Amino acid sequence: VLRQIADLDIERDRGIPVDRKLLTRDAGAVVRSADVDVVVELIGGTGAARELITEALKLGKPVVTANKALLAEFGEEIFGLARETGADIYFGASVGGGIPIIRSLREGLVANEVESMDGILNGTCNYILTRMETEQVSFDEALKAAQQGGYAEEDPSLDIDGLDTAHKAVILASLAYGFYVPLSSVHVEGIRHISGPDILYARDLGYRVKLLAVIKRGEGEVEVRVHPALVPLNHMLASVGGVYNAVMVRGDLSGNTLYYGRGAGQSPTASTVIADVVDVVRNLAAASPQRVPPVPLGGRRAALRKMSEVETRCYLRLSVLDKPGVFARIAAVLGGQNISIASVLQKEECSGEYVPVVMVTHSAQEKRFDAALREIETMDVVGAETVRVRIED
Amino acid sequence: VLRQIADLDIERDRGIPVDRKLLTRDAGAVVRSADVDVVVELIGGTGAARELITEALKLGKPVVTANKALLAEFGEEIFGLARETGADIYFGASVGGGIPIIRSLREGLVANEVESMDGILNGTCNYILTRMETEQVSFDEALKAAQQGGYAEEDPSLDIDGLDTAHKAVILASLAYGFYVPLSSVHVEGIRHISGPDILYARDLGYRVKLLAVIKRGEGEVEVRVHPALVPLNHMLASVGGVYNAVMVRGDLSGNTLYYGRGAGQSPTASTVIADVVDVVRNLAAASPQRVPPVPLGGRRAALRKMSEVETRCYLRLSVLDKPGVFARIAAVLGGQNISIASVLQKEECSGEYVPVVMVTHSAQEKRFDAALREIETMDVVGAETVRVRIED
Repeated sequence: VLRQIADLDIERDRGIPVDRKLLTRDAGAVVRSADVDVVVELIGGTGAARELITEALKLGKPVVTANKALLAEFGEEIFGLARETGADIYFGASVGGGIPIIRSLREGLVANEVESMDGILNGTCNYILTRMETEQVSFDEALKAAQQGGYAEEDPSLDIDGLDTAHKAVILASLAYGFYVPLSSVHVEGIRHISGPDILYARDLGYRVKLLAVIKRGEGEVEVRVHPALVPLNHMLASVGGVYNAVMVRGDLSGNTLYYGRGAGQSPTASTVIADVVDVVRNLAAASPQRVPPVPLGGRRAALRKMSEVETRCYLRLSVLDKPGVFARIAAVLGGQNISIASVLQKEECSGEYVPVVMVTHSAQEKRFDAALREIETMDVVGAETVRVRIED
Repeated sequence: VLRQIADLDIERDRGIPVDRKLLTRDAGAVVRSADVDVVVELIGGTGAARELITEALKLGKPVVTANKALLAEFGEEIFGLARETGADIYFGASVGGGIPIIRSLREGLVANEVESMDGILNGTCNYILTRMETEQVSFDEALKAAQQGGYAEEDPSLDIDGLDTAHKAVILASLAYGFYVPLSSVHVEGIRHISGPDILYARDLGYRVKLLAVIKRGEGEVEVRVHPALVPLNHMLASVGGVYNAVMVRGDLSGNTLYYGRGAGQSPTASTVIADVVDVVRNLAAASPQRVPPVPLGGRRAALRKMSEVETRCYLRLSVLDKPGVFARIAAVLGGQNISIASVLQKEECSGEYVPVVMVTHSAQEKRFDAALREIETMDVVGAETVRVRIED
């Protein structure tokens, strides 16, 4: 039975018939009410939500939440508290909205060591990138369309600068590797610098640009990063268009599995929140809380790979003077950092002024790219800042 | 603890170190052993497996099985028995191998009414169809390659004639709609009649050919059918290549969600079987068997739509004499059945003999197509049998 609904605004008509006696502004009283066995937190943020969840767990009451920011920033505290008090905390809707990815990781893939996860976890960014390609519009125009369509906030920075994706990446990584990855150690890059031409050049090269969360382990280290990436057109993640989200999980037994669906929105979120409530109630009925441990925090804390040590191939778009010898000088700088060029795409536009040169490199470390691009920026034949987008094959 | 392993052949070296004391040929004794709390059935088929599972359930012992044929043919009996005895039956690996699709349907999407499911559920067929497109080879050559690669049985009929897919469709439909769909009421069509040219024509028209299980409800009826279908190239299911499987589930709350992965093979199957065993053991530990009801068989038994009443668009490839007026006669036959033509693709080959005519129709009932094609077959200007492939948009 739904006992009480707490909200700051209990006057606004939301188009849903609700018994007004259920409504209150006092969320704390709801949490403390003896009638309330399960607390569902859908406030968001790290203020009141944190206090209420903490209070509920201390009272031994199970909590269902969709709060990714809270779990990413204070997960260690919250999951630690849940372990102490033995109360359940379910958070299926915190990543992937209506996609049962958290449940699949916690239960369906329980036999696997997770080798890697690649996720499109932000519908706003994916909508913008898709629209830039299909409508051939600029980032700003696509963002405006997203805002008009209700797919982007008025202040879109949490989404388009990658922080929302990073919150979700931290939660997925902690589930996969059993220790909490500090948000501050995650390399986070958004999509503001992706321009229309980059989308089209990528397409010519056989790729599509996606904002990815990349999570993997190898050689005793764990890598967690968020940035735009070129994904091969024939890869499943390249087919994920519009506001949809998807996560590709590679398990040592299962091999690649992918989970796709709506990553946000009222109904998809409700779908997952209700599934979590059903779980919690089954646990209450069987008197078996923490049937599935909230987060397997028992994992050995692995070292996090520094971004400068990460190796990827890259897409580079340079703006250079259309003069003899310029390309050779740039190739020499890259060669000096042991970065070799796989292919070059030079559109014949020959304006005599600055022209775009697009290239795809072989794999090299970030710090090599950083050094090369620093040097390239100082060259007098180079115009606008070089665009670099990593390639995930 | 793994107590015992029963197999007909306990001599063959399988490359896995195993304590020989665990091995036995007497599966019945394993089921009855007081030491055995959980029975894992990986025999397959509807003979010994049925007897052993029945015995285990009668003893109140939980069962984990991957046996799709058994559950499709005797599901009502087996799930009924489980309900009576209160023993758990988990069957995650019966559909989709390493993909947690059964778990997602039973738990992750528990809040949803399932509106439809479209699945690529047979890796052998998908491998063959993918190879026919990428290598531009015939069905027979692709089948041979599948057999050489270990992706098809020596007798491949269970896979390529669609029965394996139908078994899985019955299980998915019963989970979604809460009553057992008789296998005999499912329209089942395989992929033997798909030829190289069909794959290429489909591609020209913007589609890819996939063997689909189509499950949906509407107007009080449920539809379950298995047949090749043209899927739009930009649809997620079109991107599912090779031996991979995927299911698109449309829930009323979640919207479209998709689950993708390896549908067969030792490791993916093991991944899901172990996850099921973990669940069963958690239920035993909490003394809460049937935490999730095995199959929600309480659903209202809906009428099954007859195949003749099903409406789809169709791809038709006719072989006709290249003479004036022939196309008009064929169009007249289709028009007589109220089937209207959306587009025609006539390759200019003008041999003066039989030429292929490919057309895409608007939506019409099966029985209309049946009647029209019967009439077309009798025409003297028509050569080889007309190929009809349904279109799922």
